[in-house]
Amino acid sequence: MKHTLSILVENKPGVLTRVAGLFARRGFNIESLAVGLSEDPKLSRITIVIDGDEHPVDQVTKQLHKLINVLKIRDLDAGNSVSAELLIVRVAGEGDKRTEALQIAEIFKAKIVDVDRRALTLRVVGTNDKLEALLELLQPLGILEVVRTGTIAMGRGRG
Amino acid sequence: MKHTLSILVENKPGVLTRVAGLFARRGFNIESLAVGLSEDPKLSRITIVIDGDEHPVDQVTKQLHKLINVLKIRDLDAGNSVSAELLIVRVAGEGDKRTEALQIAEIFKAKIVDVDRRALTLRVVGTNDKLEALLELLQPLGILEVVRTGTIAMGRGRG
Repeated sequence: MKHTLSILVENKPGVLTRVAGLFARRGFNIESLAVGLSEDPKLSRITIVIDGDEHPVDQVTKQLHKLINVLKIRDLDAGNSVSAELLIVRVAGEGDKRTEALQIAEIFKAKIVDVDRRALTLRVVGTNDKLEALLELLQPLGILEVVRTGTIAMGRGRG
Repeated sequence: MKHTLSILVENKPGVLTRVAGLFARRGFNIESLAVGLSEDPKLSRITIVIDGDEHPVDQVTKQLHKLINVLKIRDLDAGNSVSAELLIVRVAGEGDKRTEALQIAEIFKAKIVDVDRRALTLRVVGTNDKLEALLELLQPLGILEVVRTGTIAMGRGRG
């Protein structure tokens, strides 16, 4: 099962390295990781998605709690949180391919952020599943480049 | 000046730690970092935003090239790339505050992803500047929680 960990840390050099290193040492394959400022400019929030089937996640959260500069950890349950990921994808777009790419973009409410004679660049936001579905549809047209943020998530208010 | 580095790496445990560690050892304050799968499932793309005023960025890119599992590095120029960041923010939303939060959400084309009696949760995508402007407008209402992906970027096709 996938686990989404939301980790509040002090915004200092080296903190991210220690957090990522802890997962690496335990052989966790980090599926995605995103880090940005939180509501407090002195603190950052790291969102990590890992596959918890191979290793017990509660062991790693215990270790995380022991790290200096780590303030708070939440294991976010998909049923009680909102999550999303951002994707920018460049896809081949000559002739008929452009028409098809534009149709797919519309279905997924993607924004066209760049275009030239040979390719279109789309920006789209959604759940991991939605983005995977989009990439699967674009694949036959020819995907030239993909950049993704990794998933971020927030517990619902009623939590 | 801010630099946005796009780093293509092999999708293996420990690679992210080595990359982040290189910046930490040199005292770079990483403003944001996002890592997700690329167009090739064996490769990930790391986007790092750093402040290049304090340290020369070309020194760190030279060091990055020497790291095992690092395949390609691009220093993306804002004028010749598209960039975006994703933000989820929970803001107080009782009474008049809700009306005001909804108006701000509409201006920024934010999506309401959660709501309860006391708060609204917005999901919005845009440049770093746009997200900062949104947070500044929401600040007087009471920001309860913020999670951000960090910026991702892609060079334009004509590059």
